[in-house]
Amino acid sequence: ILKRLNAGEVIVGDGGYVMQLERRGYVKAGHWTPEAAVEHPEAVRQLHREFLRAGANVIQTFTFYCSEDKLEISGNVPNITGAQINEAACDLAREVANEGGALVAGCVSKTPCYVTSHSETEVKAIFKKQMDDFLKKDIDFFIVEFVDHVEEAVWAVEVLKTSGKTVGATLCISPHGDMKGVPPGECAVRLVKAGADIVGINCHLDPMTCVRTVKLMKEGLEKAGLKAHLMVQPLGFHTPECNLGGYTSLPEYPFAMETRAITRWDIHEYAREAYNAGIRYIGGCCGFEAYHIRAIAEELAAERGFLPPASEKHGLWGAALEMHTKPWVRARARREYWENLLPASGRPKCPSMAPPADNYGK
Amino acid sequence: ILKRLNAGEVIVGDGGYVMQLERRGYVKAGHWTPEAAVEHPEAVRQLHREFLRAGANVIQTFTFYCSEDKLEISGNVPNITGAQINEAACDLAREVANEGGALVAGCVSKTPCYVTSHSETEVKAIFKKQMDDFLKKDIDFFIVEFVDHVEEAVWAVEVLKTSGKTVGATLCISPHGDMKGVPPGECAVRLVKAGADIVGINCHLDPMTCVRTVKLMKEGLEKAGLKAHLMVQPLGFHTPECNLGGYTSLPEYPFAMETRAITRWDIHEYAREAYNAGIRYIGGCCGFEAYHIRAIAEELAAERGFLPPASEKHGLWGAALEMHTKPWVRARARREYWENLLPASGRPKCPSMAPPADNYGK
Amino acid sequence: ILKRLNAGEVIVGDGGYVMQLERRGYVKAGHWTPEAAVEHPEAVRQLHREFLRAGANVIQTFTFYCSEDKLEISGNVPNITGAQINEAACDLAREVANEGGALVAGCVSKTPCYVTSHSETEVKAIFKKQMDDFLKKDIDFFIVEFVDHVEEAVWAVEVLKTSGKTVGATLCISPHGDMKGVPPGECAVRLVKAGADIVGINCHLDPMTCVRTVKLMKEGLEKAGLKAHLMVQPLGFHTPECNLGGYTSLPEYPFAMETRAITRWDIHEYAREAYNAGIRYIGGCCGFEAYHIRAIAEELAAERGFLPPASEKHGLWGAALEMHTKPWVRARARREYWENLLPASGRPKCPSMAPPADNYGK
Amino acid sequence: ILKRLNAGEVIVGDGGYVMQLERRGYVKAGHWTPEAAVEHPEAVRQLHREFLRAGANVIQTFTFYCSEDKLEISGNVPNITGAQINEAACDLAREVANEGGALVAGCVSKTPCYVTSHSETEVKAIFKKQMDDFLKKDIDFFIVEFVDHVEEAVWAVEVLKTSGKTVGATLCISPHGDMKGVPPGECAVRLVKAGADIVGINCHLDPMTCVRTVKLMKEGLEKAGLKAHLMVQPLGFHTPECNLGGYTSLPEYPFAMETRAITRWDIHEYAREAYNAGIRYIGGCCGFEAYHIRAIAEELAAERGFLPPASEKHGLWGAALEMHTKPWVRARARREYWENLLPASGRPKCPSMAPPADNYGK
Repeated sequence: ILKRLNAGEVIVGDGGYVMQLERRGYVKAGHWTPEAAVEHPEAVRQLHREFLRAGANVIQTFTFYCSEDKLEISGNVPNITGAQINEAACDLAREVANEGGALVAGCVSKTPCYVTSHSETEVKAIFKKQMDDFLKKDIDFFIVEFVDHVEEAVWAVEVLKTSGKTVGATLCISPHGDMKGVPPGECAVRLVKAGADIVGINCHLDPMTCVRTVKLMKEGLEKAGLKAHLMVQPLGFHTPECNLGGYTSLPEYPFAMETRAITRWDIHEYAREAYNAGIRYIGGCCGFEAYHIRAIAEELAAERGFLPPASEKHGLWGAALEMHTKPWVRARARREYWENLLPASGRPKCPSMAPPADNYGK
Repeated sequence: ILKRLNAGEVIVGDGGYVMQLERRGYVKAGHWTPEAAVEHPEAVRQLHREFLRAGANVIQTFTFYCSEDKLEISGNVPNITGAQINEAACDLAREVANEGGALVAGCVSKTPCYVTSHSETEVKAIFKKQMDDFLKKDIDFFIVEFVDHVEEAVWAVEVLKTSGKTVGATLCISPHGDMKGVPPGECAVRLVKAGADIVGINCHLDPMTCVRTVKLMKEGLEKAGLKAHLMVQPLGFHTPECNLGGYTSLPEYPFAMETRAITRWDIHEYAREAYNAGIRYIGGCCGFEAYHIRAIAEELAAERGFLPPASEKHGLWGAALEMHTKPWVRARARREYWENLLPASGRPKCPSMAPPADNYGK
Repeated sequence: ILKRLNAGEVIVGDGGYVMQLERRGYVKAGHWTPEAAVEHPEAVRQLHREFLRAGANVIQTFTFYCSEDKLEISGNVPNITGAQINEAACDLAREVANEGGALVAGCVSKTPCYVTSHSETEVKAIFKKQMDDFLKKDIDFFIVEFVDHVEEAVWAVEVLKTSGKTVGATLCISPHGDMKGVPPGECAVRLVKAGADIVGINCHLDPMTCVRTVKLMKEGLEKAGLKAHLMVQPLGFHTPECNLGGYTSLPEYPFAMETRAITRWDIHEYAREAYNAGIRYIGGCCGFEAYHIRAIAEELAAERGFLPPASEKHGLWGAALEMHTKPWVRARARREYWENLLPASGRPKCPSMAPPADNYGK
Repeated sequence: ILKRLNAGEVIVGDGGYVMQLERRGYVKAGHWTPEAAVEHPEAVRQLHREFLRAGANVIQTFTFYCSEDKLEISGNVPNITGAQINEAACDLAREVANEGGALVAGCVSKTPCYVTSHSETEVKAIFKKQMDDFLKKDIDFFIVEFVDHVEEAVWAVEVLKTSGKTVGATLCISPHGDMKGVPPGECAVRLVKAGADIVGINCHLDPMTCVRTVKLMKEGLEKAGLKAHLMVQPLGFHTPECNLGGYTSLPEYPFAMETRAITRWDIHEYAREAYNAGIRYIGGCCGFEAYHIRAIAEELAAERGFLPPASEKHGLWGAALEMHTKPWVRARARREYWENLLPASGRPKCPSMAPPADNYGK
C-alpha cells in the first residue's frame, strides 16, 4: 500500500459491511458482529466482489468488532471463536482481492475493554491476539478503525507495528476532536508518532464533515513537521445535526436511516473535495454501497487513468438515460441535471433535521 | 401456488432485482436488462438467496425486459440471446428456490412492440417465444408484471394460459386506471376473464397506494361475480406526488431515489394493510431489499406461524438494541419508538415533495 | 355593485378582519366577535383605511359573528348589544369608504342557532334582526359569508332580498361540497334561485382551492342555465392538507399559522387565476393583509387601468430593491426572481405538511 | 428609563415599524424611510397604540434611516425634510406614550455616510443634526440602533451623550462580531466606555441568536469590570442559516419572509431566555407585531406583576379556545399543546433552509 501511495496513486477504498449485511440478513443490529464470515461466507464474498468490481483497491477483512471481549459481551455466537472468524475473513478477503489485484487490509476496531478497564495491558493483549490471528493468514497491511479515543488508537498502532507491516489508523471523531476533546490535529500527531503510516477518519459523520476533520489532521501534522498519508472513509448518510456522538445519536439510528442516504452525485462532490484536500486513500464506511464506491472511481477516473469494471454498467452522469422511453427521463442524461437536483424526501409529514439524542456538543 | 393460496396460506413474494443489481454494479440503468443472469450468475444467485432467507415463498426469474424486441432495442448485450438469459435465469431461480422450498415464477413484462406496433399477433408472438424458453426449464407458474395497458396484459395471459400453468398478472397502474383510463376494477375483470388466476398491482407507486388499487380491483371482481387471488408487489419508495406516470416522472428517478426509500417500519404498516385487504400474495418491487421482505414475514408471523431464517439476525421491533452501549439507543428497543418515528431527511435545503414531470393526471 | 360588475369592472375586495385584529390586540380568538367596532373604533377604522388604500372597492362592515345568539353564547361583551356593534360598524365602514369612492357591504355570517335548532323561523328571525340594524344605516349591498351549509345561506339570502338590495353569498366550503355533501355547483344554483346576485367562496381554504370551487359553482350555474356574478375571498394561508373541515382542522390553527402565510407573489398567481376563471369580485379573508390586497390590484392593473394609492410605496415585482446597498439584494429587483422563489421555512425541525384533525374527508 | 431599570423593573420594548408599515402600505421597501410620520400620521399613531396596548413601556420614535444623507440618497420624498419627519415622529410617540405611562425613545440608526466617507466629523455632524431635531421635542432617552460597525455606534453614543440624556446602543451583529470582526464582548466594552447606559443587540437575526450575542456582550463587560443594562430587540423571523450578513442575505428577504415568522409561542421561549440571561429591556424589531410584544408581557407577567391591556383579548396559552365549537380545537386550550407544536409550512415543495447570498461567514 505504501509503495502505491508513495508513487502518487489514488487508492479507492471499499464500502461498509455491517449495515449492508444487516439489510441482507446476515448481521444482527445492536451486536454488529461479523460471524457471517463463518456462517455465510458466500454473502461476505459477494459483497467483497461488488466493492472490487466498483473499483476498490483494498478489500478490508470483515472483522469489525471481532475482538474476544466484544464477541463475549455480544453473546451472539457462542460456538464460533474470534479466531475462526478472523481467519475465515482473511481467506475471503484474500480470495476476492486476488480476483482483481487488490490489497487485503486486516482491520481492528475499538474494544469494549478500553472503556471498562482502561488498562493498557489488557487492551493491548486483545489487539495482539487479533493481530496474531491475522498474521496466520496473508494480509498486506493493517487498518485501525472506528476508535473514538485517540489513546486507544495509539495503543492499537503500537501493537500492530510490532508486526513490521504498514498500519493505517482512522478515528471516528468529529472536527471538535475525540471523546476526551483532543483536537484532530493533535490526534494525528500522536498516531503518527506511534507509528501509523496513514491517518484519517472513518464512520460517524457525513462525507464532507469527515473531509473537514482530515484537513484538521493534516494541518496538525504540518505544524508538527510530520508526514503521513491521509485516508477517509466516511458515513454514506447526511448527518448535519450531529455533534461529537455521531450518527448513533440521531433518532433514526439504526433502523430508519434510509432517508439520509447519500446519492452517487453527493459522492462525486465528496471524492473531488477529498482529492483536493490531498487525501489519497478515499473510501467509505456504513451506508456506502458498491455504486458509491464506483462513483469515487468515476469522479477520479481522469486522475487515475481508468474506470472500474462496474462502469460498464453505468453511463457517466446518467448518460445511459438517453435511451429511456420517456422524453423527460431522457432529458436527465446530463451532468447539470444531477449536479443541481435537490432530491425530495417524499415524506411531507417528516422534518428535515432532528435533534441528536446526546449532549456531547453542548 | 394455487394449492397454497387456496389453502389460505399467506405467500410472501420476493423483492426488486434490477434497481438493486444496478447499485451492485450488474445492471445498466436506462436499459434495465437482465443479462447478469448469464454474465454474473453469482450476483443474481446471492440476491435470490437473500430474498429466500428473508422469507420469500416465491423466487421470480430474473427476466425483466427479457423479450427479444426489448433486448434488441437496448443493444446492450449483442452476443447474448434472450433465450440464453431466460434459461440461465430459470436455472438460478430453481437452484435457490430448492434450497428453501420456494416456488419458481417465470416472469414476463411489457414489450416495446405493444406501443410501436399495437399488433396482437406480434406481441403475442413475443410472449410465446419467452414462454417457450421458460417451458424448457422447470418453473411452477407464470407472472405477468409491469404492464401499464390492460390490453397487453390480457394478451400475455392468453398466451401463458396455453401452457396449462397458473398465471398471475400484475399491472403497474395507479388507482386512476391504466394508461388508457381503464379503471382498476375493470382491468381485474378483463384479466380474470382472460384466464389469470391471481391479479394485482406491482411497481410504479408506493405500498399504500398499490394496496388501494388492488382494493379497487377486488371491488370490480366482486361486482362482476368473479373470483381470483390477489397479489401486490409495490415500490419500496414514497411517491405521494405521483399520478398515472408513476415514479419515472419524479425528478429523482432513477439516480436520486435514496431519500424516498421506505423503512422496515413502513413495511409493517403496509403488510398489515395488504393482509386486511384480503391480499394473500404480498411482496415487493423496485426498492424492496431483503430486510423489507423480512419485515413482511415478521409482521405476518402470527398469521403464518413462523419467522423466516433471516430473523435470527433481527430483534423484532428493534429488540436487539437493548444491548447497545448508549442508553439513548437502548431506549429505542421497542415498538412504539419505531412506529411513531418521523425520520428526518438530513437535507434541509431539499423539499419534501417534487412536481412530477408528466401531465398524465391533470 | 351590480352596475359596476355588469359594466365589466373588476371589483377588488378587502382582506381579513378578525385574525388581523386579534394580532393587533382587539379581538379575542375563540370568540372572534367584533365588539372592537364599539370599543376601539380607531383600530377598525385604520384597518379599513389600509384596505381602501391597497385598492379595495368594497369595505365590508366589521360585523362577523355579530348575531344576537352568537354574542350571547360568546359572553364576551355583556354590556354591548349586537345592534350597537352593527350600527357602529356601518358608520365606520361608511366613513372610510367615502374617503375613496368604495362601496359598503353589510355582512352576515353563520349563526350557532342553525346547527342547534335547525329552525328556519328562528334562523331567519336572527338574520332579519341583523338586517334591520344595517338598514338603519347607509349600506350599499349585503354579503352573506362564512356559511358552510347551503341551506342556511339560502335562508339568509331569502331574508336579505326582502330589503330590495343586492345580495352576494359566499360559502366556506371545499370542492367536495358543503357540510352535508351538496356539491358546489348545486349550492350555486340554490343560492341564485333564492335571489343571490353574486355567488362564490370565502375563507376555510387557500386561494387556488377556493378558485377551483368557484369554477365548480360556475359550471353548475351554466348547466342550469342560470347567471350570476362570481366572487372569491379565500384564506391567506397555504392549506394543502385540508379537507371539508378547512383550516380549523390544521394543528396550527389558530395560533401558529404564521408559517403558512401566503406571500404577495402567491397573490399574483391567485389573482390571475381568479380573473381567468371569470371571477370579477376578487378579495381575501383571514390572513389577507393590506399588501395582499394591493397585490391583487397590481396584478390586475392593466385590466383595471390604474394602480391603487398604496402602490406609491411599492415597486412592482420588487423594483425598488434596485437601490438597496447589497448587490445580491439589488439582483432581486425583478419578476423572475420572485416568481420562482421557493421560500424556506427556516424551521428544519418542522414538517411541511400536517395531518388535519378532522375526519371529514375520509 | 434608568430609574426604572435600576429599580429592577423589566422593561418591555415595542416591535418593528418599517416592515409592518410596508405591509400596511405606508413605507417603501428598499428605501425603508419613515416619511409616513408626516404623510400618514394616523397609521403610525395606530401602530404605536397597538404596541402600547400590548404592553410596551417604551415607544420608539418612527425615525429609522431618518438622517439627511439617507433621505437624500433615497430620493423618496423630495419635499419633506428630515427635520419635519423627526419632529412629527416625536410628537406621535409622545402622544401615544402619554396614553399609557410609557417613555419615548428618540432613535438614530446607521448612516450611509459612515461607509462612504468614513469621516468621524461628517458622521458625527449627521447624528448631531438628528439629535438637535429630537431635542426640540420632549423625549426621555436615546437609542442608537441597527449599526453594524461598532466604531460608528461609538461615534453616535459620543454625540448623543452631549445631550445629557440616557443612551441605549444596540448593534445589529451576530455572535461572530461586527462587520470588521470585533467580537460582541469588545463591542460592548467600547460602547460603555463611550458612555452608553444600556447596550445590546437589535434586528438582523432571530431571537435566540440575539440573546446569545447579548450574553457574549455581558461576559465582555464582566471581564472588563464594567456595568451596563442589557437590552435585546431581535428579528421576528427564524434565521438559522444566517451568518454575519443577517437576514438581508436570505433569499426570502424582504418580500417572502412570511414563512419564517415566529409564533407567539416562540416568543415565550425567547422572553424567558432573555430574562434568564439578565436582560431587562426586552422588545423586538422587524417582524415583531403587537401580539409578539404581548407574548413577552405575558411570559413575564409573574415577574412584572401585571398583564398588559391587550391581554383582555387573549386567553393565556390558548385558554379561550375552550369555547370553540370543534372538539379538536377545544383540545388545544392548553400550554403543552402549543409549547410542543412543530408548525408545518404547508409548502411541501419548499425547503426548510436556504443558503445565504453573502460570503461573510465563510
